[in-house]
Amino acid sequence: MENIRTAMERHLDNLTKPRGSLGRLETYCIKMAEIQKQVPPKIGKKGIYVFAGDHGIAGEGVSLYPQEVTRQMVLNILAGGAGINALAGGTGWEITLVDAGVRGGDFPPDGELKPVCRFLRERINGGSRNSYREAALTAGETEAALERGRSLAKDAAERGYGITAIGDLGIGNTSTAAAMLVAAGFGPGDVVDRGTGIDDAMLEHKRRIVTEAVKRRNPPPRGEEILRELGSADFAMMAGFILGLEGKGIACVLDGFPVSSAAYMAWLINPGVSDWLFAGHLSKVTGHRPLLERMGLEPVVSLEMRLGEGTGAVIGGHIVELGVLAARNMASFADARVTDAVKTEENF
Amino acid sequence: MENIRTAMERHLDNLTKPRGSLGRLETYCIKMAEIQKQVPPKIGKKGIYVFAGDHGIAGEGVSLYPQEVTRQMVLNILAGGAGINALAGGTGWEITLVDAGVRGGDFPPDGELKPVCRFLRERINGGSRNSYREAALTAGETEAALERGRSLAKDAAERGYGITAIGDLGIGNTSTAAAMLVAAGFGPGDVVDRGTGIDDAMLEHKRRIVTEAVKRRNPPPRGEEILRELGSADFAMMAGFILGLEGKGIACVLDGFPVSSAAYMAWLINPGVSDWLFAGHLSKVTGHRPLLERMGLEPVVSLEMRLGEGTGAVIGGHIVELGVLAARNMASFADARVTDAVKTEENF
Repeated sequence: MENIRTAMERHLDNLTKPRGSLGRLETYCIKMAEIQKQVPPKIGKKGIYVFAGDHGIAGEGVSLYPQEVTRQMVLNILAGGAGINALAGGTGWEITLVDAGVRGGDFPPDGELKPVCRFLRERINGGSRNSYREAALTAGETEAALERGRSLAKDAAERGYGITAIGDLGIGNTSTAAAMLVAAGFGPGDVVDRGTGIDDAMLEHKRRIVTEAVKRRNPPPRGEEILRELGSADFAMMAGFILGLEGKGIACVLDGFPVSSAAYMAWLINPGVSDWLFAGHLSKVTGHRPLLERMGLEPVVSLEMRLGEGTGAVIGGHIVELGVLAARNMASFADARVTDAVKTEENF
Repeated sequence: MENIRTAMERHLDNLTKPRGSLGRLETYCIKMAEIQKQVPPKIGKKGIYVFAGDHGIAGEGVSLYPQEVTRQMVLNILAGGAGINALAGGTGWEITLVDAGVRGGDFPPDGELKPVCRFLRERINGGSRNSYREAALTAGETEAALERGRSLAKDAAERGYGITAIGDLGIGNTSTAAAMLVAAGFGPGDVVDRGTGIDDAMLEHKRRIVTEAVKRRNPPPRGEEILRELGSADFAMMAGFILGLEGKGIACVLDGFPVSSAAYMAWLINPGVSDWLFAGHLSKVTGHRPLLERMGLEPVVSLEMRLGEGTGAVIGGHIVELGVLAARNMASFADARVTDAVKTEENF
């Protein structure tokens, strides 16, 4: 990697700007070069995968929204009316919506749905079981979800994405995320948060449910086991997707707390995943920052968002792209006949 | 304004997302609605004006780059090779480059230059005078520059921009910016910074030059007088542009430290300008944050950039646009048949 980094830095330093003056855009560009092993890197098409799934733990009354909202929001995305449609449209991402395990059975065929984006039917089940009462997934479901995630990483390569992003959709998923993280050693006080906006009494209830679920399931602190006992098909598929990107030269931008918790399960399986991950944004959810720090990731933007669906990922990922665009499209001092800086110790 | 704000909040709360979950994107959208006096607001075309000008104080050896770089960089932008070309291209802004007073006389005609963007020849002079030795501008130049800035605000309205941005280009302009702010009451230790990357010895020299220039010119702490004694044609034109947007329903996104210091001169003349200003980004330059705070502005992104040219403004302004896009394009709970949240004290 050292040669790529050095070559990328030299390329950036020859562009018509004061050295380092694009700040973190330069950092992102260097990471993209290391991921793609080319100087300068390129972006090409950008693809966001939104993984939708239901979460049995929602049955314990931990969310403001009834579970059928997951299904309704899938239809909303397919019709183009959700937040991710607006923001992916405004930042140039192609959306792939993945049904990893939404309650209520198969969706109608595409001919009837007329989806505005790609819709992949990869359902492992009809939602995870309630981890407060039983294991969330069977071993077979966990393995199948991880494997389908890996096959979606192949899909990303086949579609020619230079950069991918992950979004989440699922009522109750912040409870699942918190439970997985508590099982991995994070404190319940740090990772149980208001989700879609619950009040103090519900928050206390949610913390109790999450803590008790972890105590009852008590998985060893390993990614696959935590996903099985406390996770869900959508989270396992996200983890499989991230793991499957290894060696493909494709970056992946994380969204908020739920996606980052799934990424953390992938990181427990292979800490090398940090090499191709970007943290798209810092969400308003407590616990997101320490989680990202543990994986060595610094969020691109911090806009107090907590919507999910990948809405923060597409914004942060677009800024990563801008770093690459600058590196590719700016003229060098020599080509533009611009006089370079006087040399000082500080800048050389 | 109260009715617009309330109506905008109601509109946002009906969209298919948890209330407030788009975070600061919602704040930006509300401010855009107040500026345009319409719910939801719209963006339409986005126009960035890059004001180029030379600064006599550069003759005191306060920058790493020789003064001819201002002229060379004008040509670089016109040829499409600068940072702003890459980033404005990647975020959908139309660039207007304004020669407010670049050293070296008139530029060749457009037929010869073949500019890739609009190029407006509004030169007031061939660069400001050296404020360390004499007043930077004459009273007539100051008035003319403010007036041309106001006429460019009309240009923005005529071109149908819903949102504008300002970029800066000029060797030595961080010294001018710092001097103006010291004259306005900021501490030299807070606002004199490394600019394009000078070392400790040069920084000490720059601080001495800036402090002494302010002492010698000693203008009263009023925008127009500070611009005349210590400013420049490009900064006065920026201030005029910002002031001229009053009542036009057009937002303006600031770039980094130099642009923000010019905006501060406009703010001294009319503190109401904050109502239509956004701070596109927080630059790496010391003093940028307190300056924005004084104007009641919160930066959209913080990417450690210090390039200028409007590179931070187009990124921040694009995120403001995303807030508006979400408000315009998302479905309501009713239209998408998505079940709304259970009502709790917290979210109603």
